[in-house]
Amino acid sequence: MIPQTRLVEVRQNVLKQNDIVARELRQRFHDAGVCVVSLVSSPGSGKTAFLEKTLTMMRPNYHVAALVGDLATDNDAARLARSRAPVRQITTGTLCHLEAAMVRTALVGWELDQLDFLFIENVGNLVCPASYDVGEDLRLVLLSVTEGEDKPLKYPTIFNTSDLAVLTKMDLAEAVEFDIAAAHSNIQRVRPGMPVLRVSSKSGAGMDEWLQFLASARKSRLGHSTVEQAF
Amino acid sequence: MIPQTRLVEVRQNVLKQNDIVARELRQRFHDAGVCVVSLVSSPGSGKTAFLEKTLTMMRPNYHVAALVGDLATDNDAARLARSRAPVRQITTGTLCHLEAAMVRTALVGWELDQLDFLFIENVGNLVCPASYDVGEDLRLVLLSVTEGEDKPLKYPTIFNTSDLAVLTKMDLAEAVEFDIAAAHSNIQRVRPGMPVLRVSSKSGAGMDEWLQFLASARKSRLGHSTVEQAF
Repeated sequence: MIPQTRLVEVRQNVLKQNDIVARELRQRFHDAGVCVVSLVSSPGSGKTAFLEKTLTMMRPNYHVAALVGDLATDNDAARLARSRAPVRQITTGTLCHLEAAMVRTALVGWELDQLDFLFIENVGNLVCPASYDVGEDLRLVLLSVTEGEDKPLKYPTIFNTSDLAVLTKMDLAEAVEFDIAAAHSNIQRVRPGMPVLRVSSKSGAGMDEWLQFLASARKSRLGHSTVEQAF
Repeated sequence: MIPQTRLVEVRQNVLKQNDIVARELRQRFHDAGVCVVSLVSSPGSGKTAFLEKTLTMMRPNYHVAALVGDLATDNDAARLARSRAPVRQITTGTLCHLEAAMVRTALVGWELDQLDFLFIENVGNLVCPASYDVGEDLRLVLLSVTEGEDKPLKYPTIFNTSDLAVLTKMDLAEAVEFDIAAAHSNIQRVRPGMPVLRVSSKSGAGMDEWLQFLASARKSRLGHSTVEQAF
């Protein structure tokens, strides 16, 4: 039997190594002037649909690109490529989250200083991605109305480590009797003050507000001397 | 930096230790004559609603009990307790899955030979629970229609290690334009021959077929000398 302390030690070292790579990445992103936004959520809460809509709407005004993580298939990269933005798939095999080194490898050959925004869609998982910094400036946690209002309380760490919550599939809110006030209240309980947006990738509702949020975030970021101060 | 081999070695030892405890549990369940069914899925795909309905419908005819895993809160145990079946919450903290040792601890004081069925609801996660045997006879993977038909292809391991797929929230299938044929086809691609049930915990549709499946599973299990042969 392995002593629990040894396991914890190994895990902490892995996290530390990831943090070193994430810090290097963050500096590269900052030097290149690209604003990096990661997306985390359960499987099926609409990350890819939301990101495809975002890329498509932004392309006339910004240089945008995306990385997308999945255990298997490059289906999501194919979907996102319909936006005509540059997209790369990261396939993790059995790994339940993206790590900074995977992002670094996936970026080889890309000229980051040509980009305004880079989006990183994590593996669908409300637990493990919370612990891995991938060098992003801004982490979004998506919660679809079909998952229920209680998820922030049951998965507090992923909400705690995010900068913005996005309620997705709002077009279905009435059909599933989603209690918006309860969802807001639960988010605020685990992450007081976190902004919450409501969108429907299907109808487009809420997308303008989201794009304004991104524009402000980038402006605020460029106006500061370090990435850490930006958000 | 930690050599990758050391990490893999540690992880394999943890899995091996879990397998030893899971084997002990499986023997205990078999000796007690209790049929043990675990439920895995994404967060919010309806495990708790499905299980509450199952427990409520079974109680007149069977002795049933449940364990439920979450990172935080005992909300699910409270919901399941409305069925009046004995229920215990396992709180995992930041751990993304249940392990056999947690199940063993949670069972202390319960007389297993008084039970016909024990249900174990895992943490909501389509990746990590796949690798951890908890001594169950039967593993169910739930997929809600709101998550999309592609999930079996993107999370193959959890479908590969399950014995039955249950499509949940069928009452919403039309609203989200769920393609049932595509979902079936994707499940069969990763796990040929796996039975697939369709249910709505809200309307009750499909529940009778599910209860018949459970009754047959238990009958088949009791008719065999070892658990391994039963399913």
